Amino acid sequence: CPLLRRSHIQINDAKENPSGRCLRAVRFFTGDMRQCGEWVKRQVLIIQLLDGILRGTAQVMFVSNPVSGLLILTGLFLQNPWWALNSLLGTFVSTVSAILLRQNRSDAIFAGLHGYNGTLVGMLMAAFSSKGNWYWWLLFPNVFMSMLCPVISSALSSIMSKWDLPIFTLPFNILTCLHIAATGTTHPYFPEVCINDSLANLSIPQLFLSVPVGVGQVFGCDSPWTSCLVLLALLLCSPAICIHALLGSTAGLCTGLALAAPLEDVYAGLWGYNSALSCIAIGGVFYGLTWQTHILSLICALFCAYVTSATSKLMSVLALPACTWPFCLSTLIFLLLSSENPAICRLPLSAVSYPEENRHYLRHLRMSEKALSRHFVFLRERERDCVNVLKGRKKKTKKNRPNAAKLFLWAGRMNVACCDSLHPARSVNSIQELLSGA
Amino acid sequence: CPLLRRSHIQINDAKENPSGRCLRAVRFFTGDMRQCGEWVKRQVLIIQLLDGILRGTAQVMFVSNPVSGLLILTGLFLQNPWWALNSLLGTFVSTVSAILLRQNRSDAIFAGLHGYNGTLVGMLMAAFSSKGNWYWWLLFPNVFMSMLCPVISSALSSIMSKWDLPIFTLPFNILTCLHIAATGTTHPYFPEVCINDSLANLSIPQLFLSVPVGVGQVFGCDSPWTSCLVLLALLLCSPAICIHALLGSTAGLCTGLALAAPLEDVYAGLWGYNSALSCIAIGGVFYGLTWQTHILSLICALFCAYVTSATSKLMSVLALPACTWPFCLSTLIFLLLSSENPAICRLPLSAVSYPEENRHYLRHLRMSEKALSRHFVFLRERERDCVNVLKGRKKKTKKNRPNAAKLFLWAGRMNVACCDSLHPARSVNSIQELLSGA
Amino acid sequence: CPLLRRSHIQINDAKENPSGRCLRAVRFFTGDMRQCGEWVKRQVLIIQLLDGILRGTAQVMFVSNPVSGLLILTGLFLQNPWWALNSLLGTFVSTVSAILLRQNRSDAIFAGLHGYNGTLVGMLMAAFSSKGNWYWWLLFPNVFMSMLCPVISSALSSIMSKWDLPIFTLPFNILTCLHIAATGTTHPYFPEVCINDSLANLSIPQLFLSVPVGVGQVFGCDSPWTSCLVLLALLLCSPAICIHALLGSTAGLCTGLALAAPLEDVYAGLWGYNSALSCIAIGGVFYGLTWQTHILSLICALFCAYVTSATSKLMSVLALPACTWPFCLSTLIFLLLSSENPAICRLPLSAVSYPEENRHYLRHLRMSEKALSRHFVFLRERERDCVNVLKGRKKKTKKNRPNAAKLFLWAGRMNVACCDSLHPARSVNSIQELLSGA
Repeated sequence: CPLLRRSHIQINDAKENPSGRCLRAVRFFTGDMRQCGEWVKRQVLIIQLLDGILRGTAQVMFVSNPVSGLLILTGLFLQNPWWALNSLLGTFVSTVSAILLRQNRSDAIFAGLHGYNGTLVGMLMAAFSSKGNWYWWLLFPNVFMSMLCPVISSALSSIMSKWDLPIFTLPFNILTCLHIAATGTTHPYFPEVCINDSLANLSIPQLFLSVPVGVGQVFGCDSPWTSCLVLLALLLCSPAICIHALLGSTAGLCTGLALAAPLEDVYAGLWGYNSALSCIAIGGVFYGLTWQTHILSLICALFCAYVTSATSKLMSVLALPACTWPFCLSTLIFLLLSSENPAICRLPLSAVSYPEENRHYLRHLRMSEKALSRHFVFLRERERDCVNVLKGRKKKTKKNRPNAAKLFLWAGRMNVACCDSLHPARSVNSIQELLSGA
Repeated sequence: CPLLRRSHIQINDAKENPSGRCLRAVRFFTGDMRQCGEWVKRQVLIIQLLDGILRGTAQVMFVSNPVSGLLILTGLFLQNPWWALNSLLGTFVSTVSAILLRQNRSDAIFAGLHGYNGTLVGMLMAAFSSKGNWYWWLLFPNVFMSMLCPVISSALSSIMSKWDLPIFTLPFNILTCLHIAATGTTHPYFPEVCINDSLANLSIPQLFLSVPVGVGQVFGCDSPWTSCLVLLALLLCSPAICIHALLGSTAGLCTGLALAAPLEDVYAGLWGYNSALSCIAIGGVFYGLTWQTHILSLICALFCAYVTSATSKLMSVLALPACTWPFCLSTLIFLLLSSENPAICRLPLSAVSYPEENRHYLRHLRMSEKALSRHFVFLRERERDCVNVLKGRKKKTKKNRPNAAKLFLWAGRMNVACCDSLHPARSVNSIQELLSGA
Repeated sequence: CPLLRRSHIQINDAKENPSGRCLRAVRFFTGDMRQCGEWVKRQVLIIQLLDGILRGTAQVMFVSNPVSGLLILTGLFLQNPWWALNSLLGTFVSTVSAILLRQNRSDAIFAGLHGYNGTLVGMLMAAFSSKGNWYWWLLFPNVFMSMLCPVISSALSSIMSKWDLPIFTLPFNILTCLHIAATGTTHPYFPEVCINDSLANLSIPQLFLSVPVGVGQVFGCDSPWTSCLVLLALLLCSPAICIHALLGSTAGLCTGLALAAPLEDVYAGLWGYNSALSCIAIGGVFYGLTWQTHILSLICALFCAYVTSATSKLMSVLALPACTWPFCLSTLIFLLLSSENPAICRLPLSAVSYPEENRHYLRHLRMSEKALSRHFVFLRERERDCVNVLKGRKKKTKKNRPNAAKLFLWAGRMNVACCDSLHPARSVNSIQELLSGA
């Protein structure tokens, strides 16, 4: 199919035309660093693991980029070295455990998709412990919980795959709540901080600082420097993610003010982090970015802040923190939305990347669909010809031609039937195979 | 197929024979008023919307009839004009939001299936607010929550459609609990009434009045006049729905007395409304009405009252009202029941109407199945003939006949395979298509 | 296929060679007593029902053996005759209710799969009642709840069957929690014991006794004699189940000590019963028993003890007991685990039996798969021949042979396509059918 091939060449051209080295270097370090990923795949396991851990740290914010991961990790060490160490250990143990359990999506392991829950588990278990820093016994439950991350992830994706849904940070939420519920504030070995205080400091930060701090609170960090590094890491991978994080955090802050939340919570960014994550997820990562989905992401961020308020009040009855439950629940609801509006188009889970790449994927998909529909028209015309040939069969003497026509007719119908039954968004590969086969 | 056609003619005859105008008028205003619905579809959007809103108000009780909706709305205004206004606004916003989101079942919008959750959200948010009537700021959360109704509905039906289950009033339950959990009794802007008091007035109503009042409590109304209008609206659409509502309310009341519930709750109908809804849903709406499903609906009503008791105690720990959670949970359990008993036959979700229409549908379905099985016997006999012809092929000289036989054999097998794979209850249309094609 | 037939003959030989009567008697009373079950199927309903009730009592521990059921029932009567009577009534009512509802898996009824939830409901409702023994009014809610067991079971299996998951004791958990939440400690008719005391006696049992007592606590019994009878019943059916029960109970006890649980709870076996059930389920019953799944079962037992701690703390806020929720949740998570490791092989739900039989089934399955792959190689070679014949068609004069080749080609491809689409573990029967058909 020439159309498809041409579009491919154009893309390759676009990659080669800007001959400046600088731009190529920028291209190399931004996006999802696919070239680097492919280079890593040919190296020894230890380098693959390092890449996987760095990508895992960044995957908390839907970013698959080792440099972003390094930036975020630096931010975590700036906030608190003990927390950062725990988060690093969590990512490591969780990735290794996934390898040992031979999780079937081996690429997923090295894209960091089995690490990010470990990162959060390690980080937040250290942050919620009231024994303070460098309490080494904490490493035992930390290792056990991180080890279970791939088990819970695998179980959840078995369930969620029926609806092609991502599992987000649900394993982290489940395991952290499990640990906190199993221990509590008065536990002799592993006491927890009192949840009602949240993590809010009573300093007097400015309201405008709370927007970036809200993004950093995804990792439980309230230091503005950490937040800046996190935002830088997002910007490196994708400007759209960075902007939506800031917009989401702002939406959360506004809802907090509108619902008369305690001001120190708002200042500490506790109203921002769930909304920021929701806004990123809906605004470009799991939906193709259009202005309709942009508005949807803002509505989702507002809804998420509402859910945050409800969840944290309900869970404080059970002495549990809200973690990122509000983000998971509200985003899952908005992902399950089925609209006939072509501008609200959800990507298949296997094709999800960063927003810019997603847009490219959808454009490609639409072009293939057009080519395919033209191909269909062609096929149907051929079919009609065949039917005519078959009808006029008795009058003809040559027996070979009708037979060939009949075979072609069968093949064509099968072709059409196959294409019709495909999920529209999954069909790019199958369509290309069909076109090359036809 | 003459059998099917004949049954169709009989129905048409039945519609035409009672030539009295009065009876035709009664036919026009009862049931689901399909003729009116078809007339409305050809009108401008504003009339469609008005019809959709009235049907939406009635859909709370599984009734799709604009006159019933008008009666119920009158009842709500009798109870409290401010609550009724909120409920009207909720229905309107929720329907418009569904149109804007282009929900794929466009017919569902104008059958009121996107309005009834908005009705309940508006009504109950006004009823639970402790700021009293005409507190205009309440319209903001009301509009926001009603706007989200189609989003939650769409998400839930994506999940539930795997089991062909309805979503009932789950969106209302989720959103109302969300709002109440997010605000609470001491909120500066949107305070809620204290849930432990329920809505029970300490008046001394008689026990027998509590049966109809239990039906009215679906809308949070404790006025007997409202309840009477609601019952009248049910009777207008379907006597079976009306009787099951009363029976369910009675079953709930009895369970309340057996479980030693506070008498003022029983008098106020708070033990009746969930059971009434369950009894309607199981007794004729989602199952074909036979005496077996009639008994099942009574058991479900008793179970629902038990669940009401448990749910309201558990949720009061979290300071939440029970809403219609007990109805949703118990009815979903009874709908998921899979029995080999042919008298317990669940209707496919797309065919659900009012009980009388459902019985008609099932009778029609059974007749088609009989006709189909006769057609199968015919097909299989033809197949055997074809096989015999094919076996005796070598002895014959004419080559055309065996080929035709082979083709017929293939077509026949495909036919059978298609029919076998169909869900029995969905197959009426496909069967008719197949029969007309064969 | 000779390979399959040979393996079958070997098994038959193994059954006939040990001609000693004693060994045959042992064979008759151990395992799942299939011969007895087949004899019972030909008897009158009352004997079938008796067999079903005894098997139902044993099915609580995944054992389908009427003698084990009799031993366990004796143990229950040793502990408390009133509780045992209630449990017997529960099993009876629940089995009869399943028959009346015509649950489609009629074999399931007589394997006790509709009785074990009734057993637990009856037992625990008596144990949790604070009215003491022989309070006959308790039989009313007991009968109502047992009657609903098959309804909840049917509803849950409709949902779970999408993932081929068992329903475990979830109906018991749901119904018992429902009853306790609906009544509570201060109810005038059906008061419950205060959950915070658990069921722990303040006697001074030794730590090593708490391991078998932990197994007996599955039935809510803390008598060591009952526990010994339960263990004997397990040993009778399958040594692997017995060993895993003890190992699981030990793992739970260790976790309890590590998490600084109150010693009287640990002594009373309250940390053991969930872990024991989890360890049995993962270690041989639902997975094929290899050393990898053996380790997995120990990890699951540790995880389950952790969940027990969290669940009992959270549920005590709502004044509910933990029941066997922790077992259900943790085991479901470990069953949903999808690993590419061939040693972690989950059995299809329809093939689950006791561990020794399961290993036999899996060995059989692997042999069939090898035979099938050899058959595929053969089919593909034939296909290539056919294609060659078809290609050389024009040169040949005989028309019959290519046609036969074409037909064979189609049949072969259909064959391959069918086999590929099969779930590997379900295919034994279909494969054998295909082989016999080819």
